[in-house]
Amino acid sequence: MVDVVKRVFKRHGAVTIETPVCELKETLTGKYGEDSKLIYDLADQGGEILALRYDLTVPFARFCAEHGIDTIKRYHISRVYRRDRPAMAKGRYREFYQCDFDIAGDFESMVPDAECIKIVTEILEELRIGDFVLKVNHRKILDGIFAVAGVPAELFRSICSAVDKLDKSEWAEVKAEMLQKGISSEIAETIWSYSQKKGGVELVLELLQDELLCSNELAKEGLEAMKKMFLFCDLFGVPPGRVSFDLSLARGLDYYTGVIYECVLVGQDVGSVAGGGRYDTLVGMFTKKGKSIPCVGVSLGLERLFTIVEKNIQGAVPSRPTQVLIIGATGKDDKDQIFAERLKLCNVLWANGISCETAHKTNAKLMTQIQLCEKELIKFAVIIGSGEIQQGIVKIRDIATREETEISREELPAKILELLL
Amino acid sequence: MVDVVKRVFKRHGAVTIETPVCELKETLTGKYGEDSKLIYDLADQGGEILALRYDLTVPFARFCAEHGIDTIKRYHISRVYRRDRPAMAKGRYREFYQCDFDIAGDFESMVPDAECIKIVTEILEELRIGDFVLKVNHRKILDGIFAVAGVPAELFRSICSAVDKLDKSEWAEVKAEMLQKGISSEIAETIWSYSQKKGGVELVLELLQDELLCSNELAKEGLEAMKKMFLFCDLFGVPPGRVSFDLSLARGLDYYTGVIYECVLVGQDVGSVAGGGRYDTLVGMFTKKGKSIPCVGVSLGLERLFTIVEKNIQGAVPSRPTQVLIIGATGKDDKDQIFAERLKLCNVLWANGISCETAHKTNAKLMTQIQLCEKELIKFAVIIGSGEIQQGIVKIRDIATREETEISREELPAKILELLL
Repeated sequence: MVDVVKRVFKRHGAVTIETPVCELKETLTGKYGEDSKLIYDLADQGGEILALRYDLTVPFARFCAEHGIDTIKRYHISRVYRRDRPAMAKGRYREFYQCDFDIAGDFESMVPDAECIKIVTEILEELRIGDFVLKVNHRKILDGIFAVAGVPAELFRSICSAVDKLDKSEWAEVKAEMLQKGISSEIAETIWSYSQKKGGVELVLELLQDELLCSNELAKEGLEAMKKMFLFCDLFGVPPGRVSFDLSLARGLDYYTGVIYECVLVGQDVGSVAGGGRYDTLVGMFTKKGKSIPCVGVSLGLERLFTIVEKNIQGAVPSRPTQVLIIGATGKDDKDQIFAERLKLCNVLWANGISCETAHKTNAKLMTQIQLCEKELIKFAVIIGSGEIQQGIVKIRDIATREETEISREELPAKILELLL
Repeated sequence: MVDVVKRVFKRHGAVTIETPVCELKETLTGKYGEDSKLIYDLADQGGEILALRYDLTVPFARFCAEHGIDTIKRYHISRVYRRDRPAMAKGRYREFYQCDFDIAGDFESMVPDAECIKIVTEILEELRIGDFVLKVNHRKILDGIFAVAGVPAELFRSICSAVDKLDKSEWAEVKAEMLQKGISSEIAETIWSYSQKKGGVELVLELLQDELLCSNELAKEGLEAMKKMFLFCDLFGVPPGRVSFDLSLARGLDYYTGVIYECVLVGQDVGSVAGGGRYDTLVGMFTKKGKSIPCVGVSLGLERLFTIVEKNIQGAVPSRPTQVLIIGATGKDDKDQIFAERLKLCNVLWANGISCETAHKTNAKLMTQIQLCEKELIKFAVIIGSGEIQQGIVKIRDIATREETEISREELPAKILELLL
């Protein structure tokens, strides 16, 4: 799976950057909204106050700021840490893999944003994960809705994190949270009337005619951006059904400033398998003069995808890379001599780039070793006994067909390489 | 470098196992001798008391115990954490990569131990790192020396960690530490008379004739083991000069029980680049009934090797994976149309597995883009303008030769794949 993901990232010209597992605690503070309580702190043993990274995005932004990077397409496949309640069956762990792809730089509006959608589409299609939908929304549209509904500006992020719960909770519950956070029932109902809308580019066009919403400049900007995004997705060949403009999508994190994504598998109960969005001000939080770099990125959760991919695997999968097992046909008094030959043969095959092993026991039984090949899906056995040593030959056994052929020792590596092709 | 290391590990039939970055603090306690103070602890935020892994060996042993694994050849390439004083120029960091190869299981004495030496030899040769020597010693020989010299048994590990400093400190200094630890000058001098010895298999044979040393059963066992190790290294094709039996080698860690290794580069001031040894009792520390599994392993430090490999790199290295850049030849009023074509062409090449990019700006200049290809070592540019669009063709530019050829859009992906071969 990692190979597939990496291949797609590289196909889009991305380079990898590795950031440390530990960041300064202050780097992570104030970036994750209500989820900040899930950050793992390191003990204060003198020196810097550190914490384990919560995601790969904030460390990337810190890295760009620190190294003065203003244009980059990068990927990073690594683990992040959350003090969360694990749910193994659903692929929810405290330590888990994220596969991040980010584009930093001052570009044509919404092109990098559409490329992120393209990337997720390619990866999930190559993983044959089944049907999926990329939900997309825009923070400016959300903020526009809050503004026209009458939410006070200082409550935007707080109400946004209530909207974020709509995918898991009933409206009544979310509404109660909103009222408790200090807005009126009427305001909440206006938000709800918009949050229920979802659709394709036609919904964008419809909302561009919505007088109330378009009285807000932010909302209009967001809608125009969404229109472009649908256009670029189309040019990138993303099938229209894959992308759903979903006004209930909010994302809990504080740092998003533009488009936000979340990818769900249709008919699979694993939660979202990818998420992301635009964060144009995050890098600026780490630069001395506050100069920022526009960034957009997406992150895939490997473990959740794995629970699905694993179910689709058919037949046996080789558990080790071994292509050849060297086996001794040992008589009464020749086990040390044959063992020595086995080690020498390993060296010959290794020198030719062939993955090969031999039992680290002088008295390993021929039949047990052949059974091991069958069990472990090792394709070929090379068998050597006293007779073979005398004649300067070895036997190659094709494990699947059980055919055995004799060959001179000199020709062995070339023959194995040919058979492996 | 990681690819080279991984290829060698897999050639030897090893599978990878990933363990978490955090372990229970108690798992790490009492395993690292005097260096335990370098362990990074996590803050107590409720729940388990955790620490960052100090190496990959102890987590591997814990894993084998927990999952009841009794036979495995595994590798793990990942980062470990030490609260140490960093020295960047020498590749000494607080967070750094170790490449570990371990063999667990009850095997013919010294065969897995010799395979570890073979692995290090293959990797360093494939990395073209220059001349290197694998220093080898045996804990039983060290303990035998301590015993015949008259060191009380309870001081063995403590004196051993003094001997460990011989590669960095003068004998006078080490001797002072020994005296301070409570042994006599005479005992210290006896240890020193042995510690100065180094050589090949002939030194093993010489010491097997040493009456004082061989009066100790442990020492004799260790010497017999070393004799076998030299034999198996020879069968594995390890050149004799690569392995040096060095009685001053001690290794600081508590958990070694047999052979110990350390690899140094000749004439390079970077410290040891690999180390390891046998740890037959470590797994038993984590099993309920104390049942252990014999293990031996070796660990390469990637950063130190990198400081050397980096110096040997000649010429420019491509900084990104991009094989093709799609460039627009834009006139006055056609930039949006040509931009759309550029995005479509990207999609066509991606669909054919080609790594490709286009500038995310509608007004990117033709010459600037060609210069970008030259700078970033991108091999081919695909150029498209209004004329090309009308004729259904594109231009392919070979960046090195500056030759341009026209080709129909349909034939583009096949042609690029052919050119890239």
